[in-house]
Amino acid sequence: MKRSLVGFLDSNSPGPVRVQGWIQSIRSLKNRHFVVLRDSSGVIQVTLDSPSDELAAVVSQLTIESVVTIDGDLVRNDHVRLRGMEIIPRAVRVENSSAVPLPFSLSGWASVDIDTRTNWRFFDLRRPENLLVFRLQTAAEHAMREFWLQNKFIEIHSPKLMGSPSESGAELFELEYFGRKAYLAQSPQFYKQMAMAAGFDRVFEVGPVFRANPSFTSRHDTEFTSVDVELSWVDSHEDVMQLEERWLAYVLEKLAADFGDEIQRTFGVDLVIPKLPFPRISMREARTICSEEGHSFEGDLDPAAERLLGSYAMRKFNHEFAFITEYPITVRPFYHMRFDDRPDVTKSFDLLWKGLEVTTGAQREHRYEVLQAQAREKGLRLEPIQYYLDFFRFGCPPHGGFGFGLTRMLMTMLGVKNVREVTFLYRSPNRLHP
Amino acid sequence: MKRSLVGFLDSNSPGPVRVQGWIQSIRSLKNRHFVVLRDSSGVIQVTLDSPSDELAAVVSQLTIESVVTIDGDLVRNDHVRLRGMEIIPRAVRVENSSAVPLPFSLSGWASVDIDTRTNWRFFDLRRPENLLVFRLQTAAEHAMREFWLQNKFIEIHSPKLMGSPSESGAELFELEYFGRKAYLAQSPQFYKQMAMAAGFDRVFEVGPVFRANPSFTSRHDTEFTSVDVELSWVDSHEDVMQLEERWLAYVLEKLAADFGDEIQRTFGVDLVIPKLPFPRISMREARTICSEEGHSFEGDLDPAAERLLGSYAMRKFNHEFAFITEYPITVRPFYHMRFDDRPDVTKSFDLLWKGLEVTTGAQREHRYEVLQAQAREKGLRLEPIQYYLDFFRFGCPPHGGFGFGLTRMLMTMLGVKNVREVTFLYRSPNRLHP
Repeated sequence: MKRSLVGFLDSNSPGPVRVQGWIQSIRSLKNRHFVVLRDSSGVIQVTLDSPSDELAAVVSQLTIESVVTIDGDLVRNDHVRLRGMEIIPRAVRVENSSAVPLPFSLSGWASVDIDTRTNWRFFDLRRPENLLVFRLQTAAEHAMREFWLQNKFIEIHSPKLMGSPSESGAELFELEYFGRKAYLAQSPQFYKQMAMAAGFDRVFEVGPVFRANPSFTSRHDTEFTSVDVELSWVDSHEDVMQLEERWLAYVLEKLAADFGDEIQRTFGVDLVIPKLPFPRISMREARTICSEEGHSFEGDLDPAAERLLGSYAMRKFNHEFAFITEYPITVRPFYHMRFDDRPDVTKSFDLLWKGLEVTTGAQREHRYEVLQAQAREKGLRLEPIQYYLDFFRFGCPPHGGFGFGLTRMLMTMLGVKNVREVTFLYRSPNRLHP
Repeated sequence: MKRSLVGFLDSNSPGPVRVQGWIQSIRSLKNRHFVVLRDSSGVIQVTLDSPSDELAAVVSQLTIESVVTIDGDLVRNDHVRLRGMEIIPRAVRVENSSAVPLPFSLSGWASVDIDTRTNWRFFDLRRPENLLVFRLQTAAEHAMREFWLQNKFIEIHSPKLMGSPSESGAELFELEYFGRKAYLAQSPQFYKQMAMAAGFDRVFEVGPVFRANPSFTSRHDTEFTSVDVELSWVDSHEDVMQLEERWLAYVLEKLAADFGDEIQRTFGVDLVIPKLPFPRISMREARTICSEEGHSFEGDLDPAAERLLGSYAMRKFNHEFAFITEYPITVRPFYHMRFDDRPDVTKSFDLLWKGLEVTTGAQREHRYEVLQAQAREKGLRLEPIQYYLDFFRFGCPPHGGFGFGLTRMLMTMLGVKNVREVTFLYRSPNRLHP
């Protein structure tokens, strides 16, 4: 008999069913047993009233979180609070018995510290709200790809092993590689630009990036999934921002249609489809806005400034998103293009969502001599990055792009405060297990 | 003016156009200049007949592979061999001038050794057949994901940094991680199984895996893109094979419809949509078939045996694919499930396509005590993998899955002999650049 997912059982179609899942709870009253079975789609009550000796023996051995196959009859029962139906089992087979005691009580998770939950991540993931996070991640990525495919983007898988550092050399993991050193990619930056020099026009990549960052904040990790986009023939960073806002609106519209109610029910958050265009705030304006709120910052935005600007965008434009543009060259890498008439300002942007940075982007400098000069000015040695500089020597079109954090999107979307809660398996300086 | 891709220009719609791309060739006859412009969609002729002094000056400076923007008029001209049309330019702007000499001649690539082409990978990728490889990869992955989404799979991004080796410890990259050792994941094996213990039912992952393999064959690399699938509630490895063959047929049907002609034209290969079910050949039969051809092998299939079995499947079943099943436990990892009645045989399979292995799969052992015993029997220390064994202590459903090589698929599909030709950037023991 074919398995039914319990969430799709319908009391208007009673009859024989096979269900398979985890024992969520067992309540026994004399010779009656009420079992709640959970699978990836929901829960259902299984009722044993004066069961056969055989069934009674199986049920007496059942432990919470054991995995079972149950064959029985679905019947309507208006007295059952759980969706007005129950299964009367004919056979219960234990596929995999759970040990006792459990790592922690799933229903009591909220009082369990996050380190314990992370130690037992596979167990914590059984909570339906966690499954929803990853169903959402799956749907979000698929919507992203639909947009990219409709717009003729090419997918690349760039190497994570590099012969020389991709960017500054800070926060870099180094490894032994057949008698020399290799480095883990901190971003696909150089390689997605290589695709532009190769004539790929528009590319995306979704993959891991690595940062040997010793900090322990709730939003940092040493490995995370980066979403990267690069496109050629842009006139400025404005073209990149226009692409990104259209893309995000497409993704959020899909998610709102398919998951809006479930997100509201589970996380208490309304998923808003953003209006186009997103507000743009230059760094010059950002400084003024923040200082009017009594906050000043040096060089780059700090988290407090991000939050202030997020509130400002909401107050002034009724918008959850805001592009912050035109960063000074001091806080941007050498490959960001600069304005011809303002050589200390880059054609760059960040994107804030509800006051959290989710993107860094820019038009890139594609002129070989200018790029060399900017790298030298930043104090870089050119020899280790000559392979990268070569991309611009034999015809490279003007281009730009952005990087986007998948887990930051999920955190912001769902109002989750810690990146661990939306990461399949979190990595930090003191966490390499499980 | 908006950019037109040259491949979509139509001589029945003449008029003003803007095109942007690379100068593929320039031929000058006195005061006439014939320029071929290439972009991601194709090539077009740009004809300058007695051009203005201004235009003549630009053209006289043009170098091959320079990047230009051309505004002009598309006109029909039956004398032009290139699709019977040409562009008469009004303005030519050089966006990025190419240096001279070029790394090599793109049209003469076939006589350039593969190491030189790999050194200048961004340049070699400009050949249209290379762009086609990555357009195909993009379409293949998207079709895979459509199938998965239709079948309620969840996407995971498992960590590539691990605190202990995932499998044998051979071919493992090791790195310094905040004062201790970390390892690069050789596969997402343990983590996709973790998703089963977490109740995710069905998962997939497309991501990099790392093998410190010192060999230098045309089909090995130290980093490649692995496609991984795992699903719960299987009765045996047969369920996994049925899933995989339906999935592959779906993908190949899509590719044949959208790219069949182009693949035939470019690579001279017919893309065949495979019939279901794929042939199954047990290892016992495989030994007999090979020995009848005068070839014997110890334990696992060797490449010669794979080729013989590929030919056999074609001869006997007229099928490009063949599942080889029931491998002896000696050549399979500890976590492959064994037959109850044949404890030296695993519920496992490989998939051959045209005689090349593209998949390894199995039902997994999900019973904690049995798994422990099998690990001990293989000589593994249990302590470093206890975090993995724990997945099976608190209720884990029966499950199985497979790993699939994305580049091997492309090699086999297109009849390409070297994995470098279908890898965006190849990594081997002596190659970490570009």
